[in-house]
Amino acid sequence: MSAAQASAPAVSAPAATLTLTALPGLPLVQPGDDLAALILAALGPAGLTLRDGDVIAIAQKIVSKAEGRLVRLADVTPSPRALELAALTEKDARFVEVVLSESSEVLRARPNTLIVEHRLGFVCANAGLDRSNVAPHGEGLDEWVLMLPADPDRSCAALRARWKAETGADVGVVINDSHGRAWRTGTVGVALGVAGMPGLLDLRGHPDLFDYALQITQIGLGDELAAAASLLMGQADEGRPVIHLRGLPYALREGSAQELIRPKSQDLFRDRS
Amino acid sequence: MSAAQASAPAVSAPAATLTLTALPGLPLVQPGDDLAALILAALGPAGLTLRDGDVIAIAQKIVSKAEGRLVRLADVTPSPRALELAALTEKDARFVEVVLSESSEVLRARPNTLIVEHRLGFVCANAGLDRSNVAPHGEGLDEWVLMLPADPDRSCAALRARWKAETGADVGVVINDSHGRAWRTGTVGVALGVAGMPGLLDLRGHPDLFDYALQITQIGLGDELAAAASLLMGQADEGRPVIHLRGLPYALREGSAQELIRPKSQDLFRDRS
Repeated sequence: MSAAQASAPAVSAPAATLTLTALPGLPLVQPGDDLAALILAALGPAGLTLRDGDVIAIAQKIVSKAEGRLVRLADVTPSPRALELAALTEKDARFVEVVLSESSEVLRARPNTLIVEHRLGFVCANAGLDRSNVAPHGEGLDEWVLMLPADPDRSCAALRARWKAETGADVGVVINDSHGRAWRTGTVGVALGVAGMPGLLDLRGHPDLFDYALQITQIGLGDELAAAASLLMGQADEGRPVIHLRGLPYALREGSAQELIRPKSQDLFRDRS
Repeated sequence: MSAAQASAPAVSAPAATLTLTALPGLPLVQPGDDLAALILAALGPAGLTLRDGDVIAIAQKIVSKAEGRLVRLADVTPSPRALELAALTEKDARFVEVVLSESSEVLRARPNTLIVEHRLGFVCANAGLDRSNVAPHGEGLDEWVLMLPADPDRSCAALRARWKAETGADVGVVINDSHGRAWRTGTVGVALGVAGMPGLLDLRGHPDLFDYALQITQIGLGDELAAAASLLMGQADEGRPVIHLRGLPYALREGSAQELIRPKSQDLFRDRS
């Protein structure tokens, strides 16, 4: 026994493992596709069957596509506000009009930058709109934009219910997207929608090792899971939009991504500028 | 073959897996402990040996402890600025003095809230100071505070070099902490220090499926990895401060957590208030 081991009590715990598997073989998703069925079908080839406590993380893009959340830019007439913002941000005015239709507030508008509060309550660039690789099958490029799902929590709940009905397994579901953040560079996965697991984990009242009040009392669990899934999903193509996760060391419960949104009144960094 | 599979080309990829293992059996870390050796010793019992491309994520707390980054509050004399902020934030003035010593700027001071720019450049509450469960062995509670490591990138690089020398394996190292964020609730893991892997992954120039310019060009990879590790580490005790990660689908390279800090001049949400 080393000196280090002899000097203090070992805090022993079994070797906990978290395993994330990217499901292969998912076809390019089109509007109207049955996503629940496609994902179930992809589990077998990955050697997986759903078990209680598993979590399925899905890239927002394929949920939005399956739900037909597409807008054809040629059909959009920019409002005066959109024209004004388009000039300021140097963006396509029709694109800006769709951003506005998906937003409750514009927070920052600068050249090439349009940061808003999405109608769902979170802060992100361009209301999460996606122009890349979204044209419906057979249509030309550059003419379409993909909005976020209408209600990501509800989309998660529907998938969870389908899988429960078809497999008996009680699984968590997260829809993730990659968002920038205020003080740090790069994007990270965040949870847009959650079902069957905590969005925000509240640890208040759980004493730590020496019975001293925990300093960190709330964990953005849905976001940490979204970030972990994003790590494996990658960005460069749609080859890995669904991640199966097993080993989450927290009990599942009903949840919502709304738990992760800080109320405006409590947000010290929401000043207009 | 289902209609969905017949209608579009399948983007096939092998079942990529990311496996995170919490190393068991680490003793409570004390100042002066040889962390590199302790962690190496904990791999075997978890059935692991280091391989090229692995990443080791370590909770900031045990790095800071091993490096002796402790301050005894009774030894601290609060400055006038600390006394002023202590009244405003309703915090212990000696604690606030240590926060100031670790900060380059105070961003927000409210009752029970003190958000600063840490001397290392990132934004966090209380300069990352920890009062919970930090008393050196044999000392009383409430009298000590733990600062962040002096140079987390350097701490990571030193561990990486030790493990390379002792095992031959080329591994990435991340020191993580749990920080709050501007618009969202709860804390998530973020990378304080990084070695042997990208902090920020730059994808500019990599075309997506249809040769359309990628919209998301930079990924906060170090932070996503820190969040994934945090998911398994938990918060309630020190039982799991080290996570072994295998299967990261990105090439390792020299890196730094400084890559993840947005320069003040580019940060649209750094307004004083």
